[in-house]
Amino acid sequence: MADYVYGPGRTHLFVPGPVNIPDQVIRAMNRNNEDYRSPAVPALTKTLLEDIKQIFKTTTGTPFLFPTTGTGAWESALTNTLSPGDRIVSFLIGQFSLLWIDQQQRLNFNVDVVESDWGQGADLAVLDYKLRTDTSHTIKAICIVHNETATGVTNDLSAVRKILDKNRHPALLLVDGVSSICALDFRMDEWGVDVALTGSQKALSLPTGLGIVCASPKALEASKTAKSVRVFFDWKDYLKFYKMGTYWPYTPSIQLLYGLRAGLDLIFEEGLENIIKRHNRLGTATRLAVEAWGLKNCTQKEEWFSDTVTAVVVPPYIDSSEIVKHAWKRYNLSLGLGLNKVAGKVFRIGHLGNLNELQLMGCLSGVEMVLKDIGYPVKLGSGVAAAAAYLSNSTPLIPSRI
Amino acid sequence: MADYVYGPGRTHLFVPGPVNIPDQVIRAMNRNNEDYRSPAVPALTKTLLEDIKQIFKTTTGTPFLFPTTGTGAWESALTNTLSPGDRIVSFLIGQFSLLWIDQQQRLNFNVDVVESDWGQGADLAVLDYKLRTDTSHTIKAICIVHNETATGVTNDLSAVRKILDKNRHPALLLVDGVSSICALDFRMDEWGVDVALTGSQKALSLPTGLGIVCASPKALEASKTAKSVRVFFDWKDYLKFYKMGTYWPYTPSIQLLYGLRAGLDLIFEEGLENIIKRHNRLGTATRLAVEAWGLKNCTQKEEWFSDTVTAVVVPPYIDSSEIVKHAWKRYNLSLGLGLNKVAGKVFRIGHLGNLNELQLMGCLSGVEMVLKDIGYPVKLGSGVAAAAAYLSNSTPLIPSRI
Amino acid sequence: MADYVYGPGRTHLFVPGPVNIPDQVIRAMNRNNEDYRSPAVPALTKTLLEDIKQIFKTTTGTPFLFPTTGTGAWESALTNTLSPGDRIVSFLIGQFSLLWIDQQQRLNFNVDVVESDWGQGADLAVLDYKLRTDTSHTIKAICIVHNETATGVTNDLSAVRKILDKNRHPALLLVDGVSSICALDFRMDEWGVDVALTGSQKALSLPTGLGIVCASPKALEASKTAKSVRVFFDWKDYLKFYKMGTYWPYTPSIQLLYGLRAGLDLIFEEGLENIIKRHNRLGTATRLAVEAWGLKNCTQKEEWFSDTVTAVVVPPYIDSSEIVKHAWKRYNLSLGLGLNKVAGKVFRIGHLGNLNELQLMGCLSGVEMVLKDIGYPVKLGSGVAAAAAYLSNSTPLIPSRI
Amino acid sequence: MADYVYGPGRTHLFVPGPVNIPDQVIRAMNRNNEDYRSPAVPALTKTLLEDIKQIFKTTTGTPFLFPTTGTGAWESALTNTLSPGDRIVSFLIGQFSLLWIDQQQRLNFNVDVVESDWGQGADLAVLDYKLRTDTSHTIKAICIVHNETATGVTNDLSAVRKILDKNRHPALLLVDGVSSICALDFRMDEWGVDVALTGSQKALSLPTGLGIVCASPKALEASKTAKSVRVFFDWKDYLKFYKMGTYWPYTPSIQLLYGLRAGLDLIFEEGLENIIKRHNRLGTATRLAVEAWGLKNCTQKEEWFSDTVTAVVVPPYIDSSEIVKHAWKRYNLSLGLGLNKVAGKVFRIGHLGNLNELQLMGCLSGVEMVLKDIGYPVKLGSGVAAAAAYLSNSTPLIPSRI
Repeated sequence: MADYVYGPGRTHLFVPGPVNIPDQVIRAMNRNNEDYRSPAVPALTKTLLEDIKQIFKTTTGTPFLFPTTGTGAWESALTNTLSPGDRIVSFLIGQFSLLWIDQQQRLNFNVDVVESDWGQGADLAVLDYKLRTDTSHTIKAICIVHNETATGVTNDLSAVRKILDKNRHPALLLVDGVSSICALDFRMDEWGVDVALTGSQKALSLPTGLGIVCASPKALEASKTAKSVRVFFDWKDYLKFYKMGTYWPYTPSIQLLYGLRAGLDLIFEEGLENIIKRHNRLGTATRLAVEAWGLKNCTQKEEWFSDTVTAVVVPPYIDSSEIVKHAWKRYNLSLGLGLNKVAGKVFRIGHLGNLNELQLMGCLSGVEMVLKDIGYPVKLGSGVAAAAAYLSNSTPLIPSRI
Repeated sequence: MADYVYGPGRTHLFVPGPVNIPDQVIRAMNRNNEDYRSPAVPALTKTLLEDIKQIFKTTTGTPFLFPTTGTGAWESALTNTLSPGDRIVSFLIGQFSLLWIDQQQRLNFNVDVVESDWGQGADLAVLDYKLRTDTSHTIKAICIVHNETATGVTNDLSAVRKILDKNRHPALLLVDGVSSICALDFRMDEWGVDVALTGSQKALSLPTGLGIVCASPKALEASKTAKSVRVFFDWKDYLKFYKMGTYWPYTPSIQLLYGLRAGLDLIFEEGLENIIKRHNRLGTATRLAVEAWGLKNCTQKEEWFSDTVTAVVVPPYIDSSEIVKHAWKRYNLSLGLGLNKVAGKVFRIGHLGNLNELQLMGCLSGVEMVLKDIGYPVKLGSGVAAAAAYLSNSTPLIPSRI
Repeated sequence: MADYVYGPGRTHLFVPGPVNIPDQVIRAMNRNNEDYRSPAVPALTKTLLEDIKQIFKTTTGTPFLFPTTGTGAWESALTNTLSPGDRIVSFLIGQFSLLWIDQQQRLNFNVDVVESDWGQGADLAVLDYKLRTDTSHTIKAICIVHNETATGVTNDLSAVRKILDKNRHPALLLVDGVSSICALDFRMDEWGVDVALTGSQKALSLPTGLGIVCASPKALEASKTAKSVRVFFDWKDYLKFYKMGTYWPYTPSIQLLYGLRAGLDLIFEEGLENIIKRHNRLGTATRLAVEAWGLKNCTQKEEWFSDTVTAVVVPPYIDSSEIVKHAWKRYNLSLGLGLNKVAGKVFRIGHLGNLNELQLMGCLSGVEMVLKDIGYPVKLGSGVAAAAAYLSNSTPLIPSRI
Repeated sequence: MADYVYGPGRTHLFVPGPVNIPDQVIRAMNRNNEDYRSPAVPALTKTLLEDIKQIFKTTTGTPFLFPTTGTGAWESALTNTLSPGDRIVSFLIGQFSLLWIDQQQRLNFNVDVVESDWGQGADLAVLDYKLRTDTSHTIKAICIVHNETATGVTNDLSAVRKILDKNRHPALLLVDGVSSICALDFRMDEWGVDVALTGSQKALSLPTGLGIVCASPKALEASKTAKSVRVFFDWKDYLKFYKMGTYWPYTPSIQLLYGLRAGLDLIFEEGLENIIKRHNRLGTATRLAVEAWGLKNCTQKEEWFSDTVTAVVVPPYIDSSEIVKHAWKRYNLSLGLGLNKVAGKVFRIGHLGNLNELQLMGCLSGVEMVLKDIGYPVKLGSGVAAAAAYLSNSTPLIPSRI
C-alpha cells in the first residue's frame, strides 16, 4: 500500500479530530471480523454499554453505539426526541453549531437560532428570556454544543441547566459533546442533559465510526411519541435488541468494539478526572504559548477557553490557511484550518485525546517555526518556554512508573 | 485485551457476513488517524471513487462511501430518490428483504409487497402484471435484493430489467447488492440499475463501516426532487464536496479508506471475473456437499442458487440453532443461524469474500462432524468428497505462483 | 508492500515450522521499539523467565532467551557445557539430528555418531552399551533430538534417562526439543535433562527469533569449566545481567518479548496438558488419514509416532516434491518437503502449534486433492472421513464457550 | 496484554537504539509466519540482499542477514576472517568499542588495544605507527567502530584507509557501523572496508533481530582459511544456500524480511543522501541546543561530532541517571544512560533512524524541563530556540507534498 505523501518520521496530528489513537487501541483493532451473533460479541457489548456511561457521568442514561459519525449522532438525537415542526432553541457560535442548525432546519424543526460572534459562547441571556416568556412551553428542546470545535469555545452547561430549572421549563436539553466528552468536565446526570453525544474519533481517541449517543429517561420517554421519521438512527430498534440481549439491530464493526474496549480500559487506568486535568494542562500550556507569540485566542473571554482546541487569530496580513499548508508540507504537522467566517483568519491546534506534554511541545515548536517561515515576527522558543514553565510545574509523575 | 471466548487455532468464519478480511487489508488498516482535510485523503478518495465503479460495473454511476452499514445504505438509496407516499414494489423473499420492506414502510412509502415462499426468488410475473397495469406510472421504484442472505436465493436482475423495458415503465430500479456485489455477476449499467448498494463487510472483505451506494444519472436526477427528509444520508452534501475536491462532508474513517484501497488492489490483482468464478466454484462445491449429506438446500430451484450463501434445511427432528451453537462451541466454526420464518429449520454457510477452497473444505468437514455429533446420520467424508471431486477438477493454479 | 505470490484466502501453513501465529500474539507484537534499559522491559522479562520454565516442566532450570534460531540454541547448549575434544554420543536419525551432529563436529567435539535408519528412533541399545563400557566416563554428553522433524520420529527420553541412571553415568543430557517442547510431553526435571532448547517459531507459535535454552544446575556448573570459545551464546553474560536485574547483555527484540508474553498467556489459558492432548488428537487424526489413503508413515513403529509432524511416504513413481509444489501452487497449502535421504520420497504435514481440528481437516482435504491431481489413486474423502470419525469423538468443547 | 507502565500519549523514544519504527514497517511486519522454503521467500530475500548493498555503498560486497543482534554480527565478522592468536589492532574509545574488544579477547585474538579518552576519537597516529613498524604484517585486522554510541564520537574511516594504504598494509579493515550505517556517510567500497556490520534496530529503524554483515571479496577470501571455530555465524553455510538460490541455512524471521523490504522502500523513497542530510540536521540542532543550555558535549572535538547520538555532560553536582529516570517517569521520554566510565556523568540523546524535526523538538523541550526539574539552571526554551533557528532555515519541504 502506497502512502501518498510519505515524509520521514511521525506525523504530528494536531487537528481537533480525528485525533491520535493510542497504540493499545490500534493493536486491539488489528483483527479479523467475527460473527456478531455469537455469544462473544453481546458479552463484549454489554461491558461497553455499561462502562461508556461513566464517560458521560450518568447512571440513568441509556447509551447507543451507532455505526456512524457525529453528524449521524446529531440526527439520532434530534429525530428520536422531536417531531417535525417542533420549536427548538439552538445556539450558533461557530461552524459546527452552524452545521447542526442546518441539520435541524432540514429535519423540519422550527429553530430559534441564537447567534453570537464567532469566538463567544452561547448567549444564555437570550435563552433565559426565551424560556421565561415561553409560558405555554412551545419550546421543545435546547440544542447546544458543549465545545465549539471551530472557535475553541466551551459553553457553560451547568448555567444552561440552571436557567431551565429557574424557569421550570420542561424543554429537553440536547448536547453536542463531540469535542468535549472524555476531555472536558461533562456531567450528564448532574446537569440534566437529556441527550449527549460524541464521536469515537475525538477524545475517545479511536478511529471514526462510532456515533455515541446517550439518552436520559426523559429523552427515552420522548422517543416514544416523537414523530420524526427514522429507521437507521431509531433508538427503538436498539432497545428491542438490548432486551433480547443480542444488542445489535444490524452489523457493528467488530474492530471498533474491541477498540472501544481497549480505549475504555486505558481511560479507566488513567482515570477520567486525571484525563480532564491533563486536558486542562495542555490547553493552558497552549494558551500561554499563543500569548507569548503575541497572538490572540479566537475565544474572546477566559470563561469560554477550551481545553480541547485553541483557535489562534493571525494578523490580517497573514492567510492562516498558508500556515496549515506549510506546517504539513515542511514539518509533517497537521493543524486545523479556519472554517467559514474565520477561514484564513484563524488556525487551530487540537490538543485533545490520548496526548502528552512533549507531543504538544513538538507541535508548539513547529508552530513557531511555521510562523517565522511565513513572515510573522515570532521569537523562536518563546511559546515553548512559556508552555514549559507551566508544564514543568504542573505535570505529575506517571503513576505506573513511580 | 482479553478475548472473551478463546479457543486454540483460527476461528472458521462462515457466516454470510461479516466475512474474513485478507491480511493485506488488516495490515493497511493498522494505522493512526490522519487529518482528512490534508491533500492526502482527497487524493486517496479520488482513486477509491473511481475504482469502486468497476465493482459495480458502471461507468456512468456516482458512488458514495457512507460511514454506515447496509441498513444505512438502504435508507440512503430510498430517501434520496423517493418522496413520502410514493408507491414502490418490493419483494419479500426472506429476512433481509423483509427488513428492507419494514424500513420502506417506516419511511412512509406506499409499498406493494410481493411475497414469495422463503426459498423462492422474487415473483417476477407479479411485477410484470403490476407494471403492465400501471399505465399512469404510479409505481416510482422497484426494490429488490439481488441475493437474499437469509435463504441463499439469487434473483435474476436482468429479467427485472427486461420486464421494466418491455413495459416501458420509468420506475427506478433499486437493488440491494449487499451479499452479491463483488461476488456474483452484477452489472449496474447493463441492467439499468438506478441505485445499487453494498456493505464493506460482505464480499469486499473489509470490516463493517462503509455503506457503499452507487447512483445512476437517473437516480441523481430523481434526488433533486425527492422530498424524503434526509441529512446524514443526503447525496447532495457529498456532491457538493465532490465538486470542491475535498470529498467528505463529515469525517470518514481513515482506516477504512486505506483498507478499501488495499482491498480493491487485491480484487484487481485477482480479477473481478476470476472472483466471480471462484464464488461459483465454492458455491457449487457447497451444494454438492449438502446433496451428499442427504440434506436439502433451502433454495427451491437451481435458477436461484446463490454462490455466496447456502441455507441448509435440517430434518424436522433437529433444531438448526443447535448446529450453529455446537459448531462454535466445539469446532471454532461460525455458521449462520436460520432467521425468522426459517429459524431452527436452516443453518447457513456463507462462502463469500476472500476465501479459498481449503478454507471451505475445513468448514464442510466441520459441518459433517457437527451433524454427526448432533445425531444426524451423516456419512463422514461424504460431503467433503463430493466437493473435492468437483474442486480438484475446477480449481485453477494461482496465477502469481505459476 | 507487494505480496510476491498473492492467492485469494488464507494460506494453509502446514510445514513443521515456522507455524501459525495466533492473532493475539500478532497483535501483541504490533508495536514500536522501546528502551530495553527502562524499568519496563526487565519487569516484563522477569515474568517471561519465570513462566517459560513451566513449558520445560522445570523448577530448577535456568532459562535463556537468545535472539537467535534453533541452530544458535544448539550452539549455545554445546559450547557452554563442553570443551573441544570432549567425547559425546549423538544420534543420527534424520536431517535435523544430522545438522546438529555436523555442528558438533565443527565445534571440535569428538562425536560417537549412532545412526539409525531414517524413520526409526535413536538406537538406545547402543547407548546402553556405550555407557556401560565407558567406565572411565570419557563420554561427557548425550545429544539427542526429542522429535526428529525430518522423519516425524519421537524419541523416548525417559528411557534415555533410565539408561544413564542404570549405568550411573554422569554424562550431560542435551536435548533438542525444537519440534517437541510445548507440544509433546516433555519433562526436563523428571527426565534429568541438562540442557533443553527450542525455537520460538515452533510449538510456541511465535515468529522466528528466540532460541530458548534451559540449563539444569548441573549444566550451569559445567559451564563454569567448559572451554569452548563463546561470546554471543555465553550463558555467563546473561547470568551477570540476571543478577543485576537488567537481564539483557545486549538488545532483545521488544516485539518478541511482548509476543512471548501473549503466547504464554494463551498457553496457560488453554493449559499445557490440554495442548499436549490437542497435539495428540491432531497427530492421531493425521495418521488415520494417511492410513486411509493407503500410504505409509515414514516413522516405522508406533512407539516413535510424532504428534507434531507426520512424514508421509509416497509411492516410488511419485516425486514428493511435486506434491509440495502443487499444493502451494493450486491450493495455497504449504507442506514440508522431504529432506536429504528422504528427498522426493516423503512429504511432511506439520501439525504443531496454535492449530485446531478444522484447520487440519482443510489441510487433509487439500492433500487428498493434491494426491489425486498428481496421479495417486486416492479415494477422495477417505482420509478426511477417517480423521473426522476420530475427531468427532475426541474433540472436547472449548472451555471458554461452554 | 498489559502494558506494564502505561502513560498517556506516545512514548518519546530517544535512546540511541532501538529506535522508532516507521508505521509502514510495523504494518509490513504485522503478519503470520510463512514457509521459508516456498518460492516466495527466496524471491523476497534476493531483492533484499541486492538492495541492502546500497546502504553499505558497495557493489562488490556480499551481505549476510543473520538472525542475531549487533553482538552476533561482531562475532560473525571476526570469526569468519581471523584465526585464534591473530594479532589485531582495536580502538577503545567508549563502552561499545570496549565490549567489542572484550569479545575479541575472549575469541582468543591477540588484541593491541589503542585507548583514547572517552569523548575522543580513535588515535590514528598510533595506528600509523603500528602499521609502519609492522613490516612483517603480523597485524591481521584493524577493528574500529565508525560511531561510538556511548560517547557520540564518529571516527574518520577514510583516514584509516589512507593510513593503511600509505603503509601498504594488507590488514583487513573491520568496521562496526551499528550506529552509523544508513545515517552517517558510510562508503564501504571507497574506503576499502572489508567487513561492515550493523543491526536492524538502529538507523534501519526495524525491530532488533537482524545482524547485517557485509563482506568484501578480500574478507570472503580470508574466510576460506580463517580457523576460528564457527557454525551459526559461518558465512560458508550462507554462501552454499545463496548458490542454491534458497538463501537460508536455517529459519529466518519472515516478519523481519518483510519489515526490511518496507524499510528499504522508505529509505529509497527518501533517498540515502537525504537521510544522511537529515541526520546531520538533527545532530546539528541537538548540539546547538546543548550549547544553549550551557552544557558540554562529551565529544571533545567537532571533527568527531556524531549525527546519530549526542552524549551530554552534566555538571558534577547532578547524577545523569536521575535525568534519564525523571524523563521517563514524568515526561514519557526515553533518553540514554551514561555507561561505564561516563555513568552518572552523561546522558545521551539518540537522534537516529526514522525521525523528524518536530519529534526532536519535543525531546529537546522535554530535556529542558527535566533539567529544570532536577535543579540545573536552564533557561526554558533556550535550547529549543537555538535548534529552531537552525532548523527553520535548513529543513526542506517534504518532496511528496510539494
